[in-house]
Amino acid sequence: MLAKVYVTPKKAILDPQGKAIAHSLHTLEYNEVGDVRMGKYLEVRLQGLSRAQAEQRVEEMCRRLLANLVMEDFRFEIVEE
Amino acid sequence: MLAKVYVTPKKAILDPQGKAIAHSLHTLEYNEVGDVRMGKYLEVRLQGLSRAQAEQRVEEMCRRLLANLVMEDFRFEIVEE
Repeated sequence: MLAKVYVTPKKAILDPQGKAIAHSLHTLEYNEVGDVRMGKYLEVRLQGLSRAQAEQRVEEMCRRLLANLVMEDFRFEIVEE
Repeated sequence: MLAKVYVTPKKAILDPQGKAIAHSLHTLEYNEVGDVRMGKYLEVRLQGLSRAQAEQRVEEMCRRLLANLVMEDFRFEIVEE
């Protein structure tokens, strides 16, 4: 089973990496670009869990390690392989 | 319009960040975790483009700036807001 985890900066938090990318895109004359937000994308392979167990365990991993809940939001999906 | 861009290390490339996360998860006794791959997730807001134009422009942004094609793959989706 594979967990696809998306960790994104919270709306209210400044995102300097995103700002830097937006700036670079403007320099390359992509003037259609507005705001850019940069987050993390993780693929976590899981063995020997049911889907329900995987949902619960990955939620816990996000809260304990993968996301900083003060500054980041997370969401994930579990897919069969 | 919003482009959601996923940039991931190529399969053949070592991913030290992913390895470090897998190691930390094992230390926290998530023994069900196998391989972890770490990539980037970007949200790029776009103004004044049709969907077809957006597809073409974002593909180009990925190739020119957002992904390092030697080491990374990318994919993206365009969503209406």
